[in-house]
Amino acid sequence: MRLKPEFARFSAFLLDCDGVLWRGEEPIPGAPEAVRALKASGKKVLFFTNNATLSRRGYLAKLRRLGFDAEPGEVYCSAYAAAVWLRNRVRRVYVVGEEGLVEELKLAGLELAGPEEAECVVVGLDRGLTYGKLEGALRCLSRGALLVATNGDPTLPTERGLAPGAGAILAALEAAAGRRADAVVGKPNAFMYELALREHGIRPGEALAVGDRLDTDVEGAKRAGLAAALVLTGAAKLSDLERARVKPDFVLGSIRDLFE
Amino acid sequence: MRLKPEFARFSAFLLDCDGVLWRGEEPIPGAPEAVRALKASGKKVLFFTNNATLSRRGYLAKLRRLGFDAEPGEVYCSAYAAAVWLRNRVRRVYVVGEEGLVEELKLAGLELAGPEEAECVVVGLDRGLTYGKLEGALRCLSRGALLVATNGDPTLPTERGLAPGAGAILAALEAAAGRRADAVVGKPNAFMYELALREHGIRPGEALAVGDRLDTDVEGAKRAGLAAALVLTGAAKLSDLERARVKPDFVLGSIRDLFE
Repeated sequence: MRLKPEFARFSAFLLDCDGVLWRGEEPIPGAPEAVRALKASGKKVLFFTNNATLSRRGYLAKLRRLGFDAEPGEVYCSAYAAAVWLRNRVRRVYVVGEEGLVEELKLAGLELAGPEEAECVVVGLDRGLTYGKLEGALRCLSRGALLVATNGDPTLPTERGLAPGAGAILAALEAAAGRRADAVVGKPNAFMYELALREHGIRPGEALAVGDRLDTDVEGAKRAGLAAALVLTGAAKLSDLERARVKPDFVLGSIRDLFE
Repeated sequence: MRLKPEFARFSAFLLDCDGVLWRGEEPIPGAPEAVRALKASGKKVLFFTNNATLSRRGYLAKLRRLGFDAEPGEVYCSAYAAAVWLRNRVRRVYVVGEEGLVEELKLAGLELAGPEEAECVVVGLDRGLTYGKLEGALRCLSRGALLVATNGDPTLPTERGLAPGAGAILAALEAAAGRRADAVVGKPNAFMYELALREHGIRPGEALAVGDRLDTDVEGAKRAGLAAALVLTGAAKLSDLERARVKPDFVLGSIRDLFE
């Protein structure tokens, strides 16, 4: 497999996962081979996801389970990005989120705390959400705690259709607290891409971001100064391109089309 | 007790409950006596609340428990108002709310239904909220169901501080569904006041609404064409008046100040 000439100039490929590499628990046809071929051509490959329900460890396990050649240090999930964003700003956090987020926060040296002690409310997708968790979060916010979300995605796709995402939970807290989040770390924020570039010593001009969403992947890539390729194996359809505020540099049927 | 001359001309008094008649489980000093005195002067007294956790029956019991002279037919809560709003529009509803709301919907002949059958999602304060309830509601909305809220209050006061209100839950669903509610029935919508005027044959010019909130009670009263008195025993402070979009006709220390 040989890279098309327009892609050969990039030394790093920043790949979104859901909709680019897999859908749910199914790898997208040709995607494991594409990742292997990128690495075989000496390219750096990094994996990105806005979903904060798993830690980097969790995503590494999923990547490998679905047949992708991935190593520790190559995974960037919004749970990790949120932990990095927070670690020099606060110490005690109140979490509305799942185990993967908790794991990353603890790895970053942050302490889980109750409504009366936390300096920050961290919001990710939480399928165990209860009214009590929202109430505790609001109590923190009423005390002046920061409000930080892993990502603002209003929904996520499931086998049964769309389900509420971290962005929906965030909207409830923003409404109750009467203020907007202090930071939404995931895409389209550039933070996660910039973190990866910094940690791997990559200059923006060398990297291509590959994603299936215009409003997060492509927009985030552009904000980070990266070239962006849209694949049509996930959320975005070709017909969405016309009204997109930010356009990708390339449009591909699937990640397989990086190659001739 | 004699009504002040400026209030004697009104034949009906539409009283908000929380912050006007009580705070939590404590009657506001002088409020039970004021209600009794209004009725003794031949005035019609009606009770209003945006809170949808109790039915009219539930509020009647609370009014009496706290020493207020109240009769069936005098209570207007947003659960009842939502049921009236819905009863000629849909038949099957998916409820995110508490027992009081369910009771009023059933009394209005509406059927509780699951995500695949409901024609409308009805949102009230739900202290038993779970992620699963939000997910079911979103599934209805994805099928095109109406989205109706009892009220848009982002918070409610509790002994432990502010807690998330129906408006916060509504915000989560609006974010997930990517659209606004089709109706928010409670104040500042005029519907609940208009319903009471209609059911009791009161003309707007005859009635005074008494409330503790500028953005719901006073605003709703003005939209319904009513005179409005703000009391300072609840949410609003005198200093809030200056930047209020809609001003009350009267400002009272407490409901007791209707009298000389």
